[in-house]
Amino acid sequence: KKTFRIVVLPGDGIGPEVVAEAVRVLETVSAASSDVELKLETYDFGGCAVDKYGIALTEETLQACQQADAILMGAIGGPKWGVNAKVRPEQGLLSLRKALGLYANIRPANFASESLLAHSPLKPAIAQGVNIIVVRELIGGAYFGTRKELGVSPDEDAAWDTMTYSVSEVQRITRVAAQIALAADPPLPIHSVDKANVLASSRLWRKVATETLQNEYPQLKLDHQLVDSASMIIVANPKKLNGVILTENLFGDILSDESSVIPGSLGLLPSASLAGAPSVANYAELTFKTTPGLYEPIHGSAPDIAGQGIANPIGTILSAAMLLRYSLGMDKPAKAIEEAVRKVLDSRDIGGEGLRTADLGGSHKTKDIGDKVVEIL
Amino acid sequence: KKTFRIVVLPGDGIGPEVVAEAVRVLETVSAASSDVELKLETYDFGGCAVDKYGIALTEETLQACQQADAILMGAIGGPKWGVNAKVRPEQGLLSLRKALGLYANIRPANFASESLLAHSPLKPAIAQGVNIIVVRELIGGAYFGTRKELGVSPDEDAAWDTMTYSVSEVQRITRVAAQIALAADPPLPIHSVDKANVLASSRLWRKVATETLQNEYPQLKLDHQLVDSASMIIVANPKKLNGVILTENLFGDILSDESSVIPGSLGLLPSASLAGAPSVANYAELTFKTTPGLYEPIHGSAPDIAGQGIANPIGTILSAAMLLRYSLGMDKPAKAIEEAVRKVLDSRDIGGEGLRTADLGGSHKTKDIGDKVVEIL
Ligand SMILES: CC(C)[C@H](C(=O)O)[C@@H](O)C(=O)O
Ligand SMILES: CC(C)[C@H](C(=O)O)[C@@H](O)C(=O)O
Repeated sequence: KKTFRIVVLPGDGIGPEVVAEAVRVLETVSAASSDVELKLETYDFGGCAVDKYGIALTEETLQACQQADAILMGAIGGPKWGVNAKVRPEQGLLSLRKALGLYANIRPANFASESLLAHSPLKPAIAQGVNIIVVRELIGGAYFGTRKELGVSPDEDAAWDTMTYSVSEVQRITRVAAQIALAADPPLPIHSVDKANVLASSRLWRKVATETLQNEYPQLKLDHQLVDSASMIIVANPKKLNGVILTENLFGDILSDESSVIPGSLGLLPSASLAGAPSVANYAELTFKTTPGLYEPIHGSAPDIAGQGIANPIGTILSAAMLLRYSLGMDKPAKAIEEAVRKVLDSRDIGGEGLRTADLGGSHKTKDIGDKVVEIL
Repeated sequence: KKTFRIVVLPGDGIGPEVVAEAVRVLETVSAASSDVELKLETYDFGGCAVDKYGIALTEETLQACQQADAILMGAIGGPKWGVNAKVRPEQGLLSLRKALGLYANIRPANFASESLLAHSPLKPAIAQGVNIIVVRELIGGAYFGTRKELGVSPDEDAAWDTMTYSVSEVQRITRVAAQIALAADPPLPIHSVDKANVLASSRLWRKVATETLQNEYPQLKLDHQLVDSASMIIVANPKKLNGVILTENLFGDILSDESSVIPGSLGLLPSASLAGAPSVANYAELTFKTTPGLYEPIHGSAPDIAGQGIANPIGTILSAAMLLRYSLGMDKPAKAIEEAVRKVLDSRDIGGEGLRTADLGGSHKTKDIGDKVVEIL
């Protein structure tokens, strides 16, 4: 039996609750498999680590992550460790991304079930059929350029950040976007987003993305959008951006959050942060097995509802599915989980509309959703 | 009679068509006034200037703008002068903003008439009552920091931009936001948007905005939003951000465009770009009379419909109203124009739903709208 080591980082707030359900799902997959065993190990990370050790990412947790095959995270942070705190949980997340080389952040925004349309803030005719995958560069740009704080000389009255990109950084994320586009049948179009009418880093972005795709993936459709225009289209006519949105770190942060509210609840959406070179047996089987990937729901730690057992675990469960697919090469159980989630949301046997947690106007508990997914699997 | 000099920059695409109607409206105001005369002079600016003179902003146009009391612009640019062109119209706009010191960009996003709710991409319950004024810093940040292009040494394979802010830059835009908030009765809350959990320039922003408001405008409500979270809220629950969104240049570019699609058509919304110190006789009468302000609709040059006389001139007409208010201190005719526009959109006497151009599903012409506004005035 092949053993995979999965590091689990429950984190803060509702993190432990939603992770618990995804862990049960992974354990079910492990128990059902004749050739693979998943070994799950839990570590402190985020605000809980700040409280215990004074830092968000300890050497022990980092080492465990580096030696793992994949990492499943819940959510970190909260008002307790606010923007003005000396040690902030987010710093741990940024350090972890950098240390693991997680340059490719994949965030799908689509409807796990059509029955969720009613929960979208957009009119049904506009929301129906939205299927956007944001591929965000995650360890470059203004997040990791040199910066200077207020009060530091020279120019004590000013502060600045640098948005930097190199050719190779843009090439590698463009290739990931291309592979994601090719994994679909028919292949998805790529919408590269930048601010090339103003920024030098965006002009580099546009040039390198264009050349890489023209030279290496001439079969893919490519267009370019300015970030201000893209942020309009995501509200006014999001289907125009169906396919892959390829963009840099800060724009990806903004646009992926913007598009993630279309499907009606943040609680539904997963994400993957990937490192290393993609390996592709055939277009449909894209994996990132050389280095551990980090998987997490896109929602935050929601301290206001923590401890009540009412958070939606679907984003985390779908993150576990992405983990199986990309880091372990287990596409079949990944698909089975995704199908189970769809059934849970749709099933007419328990409640008229399927199982719904509070974020979707229902009264089912975090555990009810986990139970049902496990049962279906 | 006091004479005001207004420079008119029709620009490209539909620019001249929509500006023509706003000019008629201003001429009507001028003719009706016993103590004020408006002198309008037209200059080349944008793509049309690139074609004629090889640059978007000529010395002559710049000088005229500098000597004017206010500037009314249409729209500039188009595929003819694309991102890869050597001389881009946008460069002229950025130069003009910088040369005139236009640090404060004011962009309201609200429903000129409730009858437009049907045109919003958001569900009526979510869109109804949205009333957001974005106050965007316009001549700082990544737009005007030092940058390095790809292919330039050192580091020929990289490109970068610098996002810089100084204490005084943030103070002055914060004061404008505060004055805009106080001009409403009751005063509006201020939502300052930054990315203080990552960027040094945002930490400066948050600190200075907080201190300026606490010290100088303690009566105003202030909260802080991270830009990724703000971009979600604008879609999911925009009324939560009703009031003034105060933010830096690049975030303001993205968020103002995002919020501008809520009212259903970009053709409806005006903007003001202001310089100099605000002068305030009483809270309700905020003006920027010491330096010329630039007023323009938020839409682009829409080359696809140019020359057909079907563009919506309302955004430009409402920009002329802002011009009267902020640059000339003529609040009364400004209000009269705004009221006339509301009537045009609502009036049941011509067509069941008022007058509507193609962007709102109607078949009225650019000129029909202008005619009716002039008639009502
Ligand atoms: C917590 C924060 C630093 C982070 C980011 O900005 O990248 C978050 O918003 C995200 O998108 O994962
Ligand atoms: C044309 C472009 C440079 C400009 C900007 O980014 O500021 C435009 O998008 C705007 O918002 O006025």
